[in-house]
Amino acid sequence: MADIGFIGLGIMGLPMARNLAQAGHQLHVWARRPETLQAIETDPRFTVHASPAQVAAATQAVFTIVADTPDVEAVLFAEQGILAGARPGLIVIDMSTASAEATRRFAELLAAKGVDMLDAPVSGGEVGAIQGNLSIMVGGKPAVFEAIKPFFALMGKNIVHVGSHGAGQVAKACNQIVVGVTIEAVAEALTFAQAHGVDAGKVREALLGGFAGSRILDIHGRRMLEDDYRPGFKATLHAKDMRIVAQGMAAHDLTLPCTELVGEKMQTLAHGEWAESDSSALYKLLKH
Amino acid sequence: MADIGFIGLGIMGLPMARNLAQAGHQLHVWARRPETLQAIETDPRFTVHASPAQVAAATQAVFTIVADTPDVEAVLFAEQGILAGARPGLIVIDMSTASAEATRRFAELLAAKGVDMLDAPVSGGEVGAIQGNLSIMVGGKPAVFEAIKPFFALMGKNIVHVGSHGAGQVAKACNQIVVGVTIEAVAEALTFAQAHGVDAGKVREALLGGFAGSRILDIHGRRMLEDDYRPGFKATLHAKDMRIVAQGMAAHDLTLPCTELVGEKMQTLAHGEWAESDSSALYKLLKH
Repeated sequence: MADIGFIGLGIMGLPMARNLAQAGHQLHVWARRPETLQAIETDPRFTVHASPAQVAAATQAVFTIVADTPDVEAVLFAEQGILAGARPGLIVIDMSTASAEATRRFAELLAAKGVDMLDAPVSGGEVGAIQGNLSIMVGGKPAVFEAIKPFFALMGKNIVHVGSHGAGQVAKACNQIVVGVTIEAVAEALTFAQAHGVDAGKVREALLGGFAGSRILDIHGRRMLEDDYRPGFKATLHAKDMRIVAQGMAAHDLTLPCTELVGEKMQTLAHGEWAESDSSALYKLLKH
Repeated sequence: MADIGFIGLGIMGLPMARNLAQAGHQLHVWARRPETLQAIETDPRFTVHASPAQVAAATQAVFTIVADTPDVEAVLFAEQGILAGARPGLIVIDMSTASAEATRRFAELLAAKGVDMLDAPVSGGEVGAIQGNLSIMVGGKPAVFEAIKPFFALMGKNIVHVGSHGAGQVAKACNQIVVGVTIEAVAEALTFAQAHGVDAGKVREALLGGFAGSRILDIHGRRMLEDDYRPGFKATLHAKDMRIVAQGMAAHDLTLPCTELVGEKMQTLAHGEWAESDSSALYKLLKH
């Protein structure tokens, strides 16, 4: 059993940390907002520290899962950040969804101090986090991946070492591209059916058995037809991820037309009445 | 065992007709191009006629599967077309992919002469036609659908009565929207990965287990990564289907941005060096 650092006890992080604790590990945590700690303060498997630096000093591996790239940067490099307390040999596993370019820079800065990093963003939502069957997309050195794999196995099922630093974030960006554009594809198809006066539920049923079949058509398609946009995955978060995608496109001078289009629609969604809804509310932006 | 008409012995139609014949039915056929008949001329289960009118006169149900809306119109309403030989009570089952608006008009014209019509376009490609596991999307009267269902079951597996006349064509259009836009989504995501220097095969693997998973990511994604665009489903045909989608959008004053974008890209593909390739060659139109 190991002493493990865990920073970011949010909707995703809390159940993920609990799955690590459930396996017998001792969790060392810090939270930016003290109220976050209420959920674990009476749990003997959790030790609360005063800073990320103190968490790093008490452990040999620290998992982080925070909201966005600047939050990752702050947890790593602020005055009382992880690096300030890290001994050589520490492994930082960032499970946030963040910029691949920034991740590569962070990994270099950490490596200069003898600290190894993996980027390991996840897909599967709160349900996947609770059930421990997340998809985990990992970038970093193979030996470090192998060392951390047993911990990943406590949180996820489909665990793929995609490549070197940043590759996990690139895979996650690809995931959000495919999910976003496929949601739009389903939304446009169901809109086409309804405009023709045809039962869109029957169309969904007919399509599920063929090449058009997907988890998005199944689950998100049903949300559209039932007009039930409880998340799921919030439009604000998908919009944040699509901004990261846009940064990656800009960094490599890429033109990806449907991705750009859905990225813009997702920003519209995230700044309107559907901001806190599931991102399949993209359907609501089409004229009916 | 029944006498069945079948017009359109092409890549799809020939194996579909053979599956009907295999079950013991006698097939009455006509072909616009005589060379098409070579495949069946020594087969005693097939009777060749001199016109669609003669096919109609010899049978109580005629299946048609031809290239495009004007071909359907010609087979039905030309001087020696099906209507010219039809007795009241004949059922015409059009399995072509054609315009829903035109289909509704055809059904009305036939009904005025006592002829029933179903639209029943299919999905699943040549392999599905051979194996008899096509998806069949049906529009028309429920009683007529029930009468023809046993024949559909010889050609397909996922058979859905979507609604009244034209509803099958609407479902097929929706199918082509979702397939086309999802191919573009996968193409853009894999392009994003490669631009970042990340193994796109590993990305595909990581995504298959999660919400981004689909048959398109699996099969068409592999075609892109292996640079193997043998059809499958030809770009020229997908482009034709997207023109039918565009007609449906215009008829209902619909704006579906990703559908429009992919429709335009599909026309570009169908008028260039990839015309006879699988439509997943959309990948080739992105800058790498």
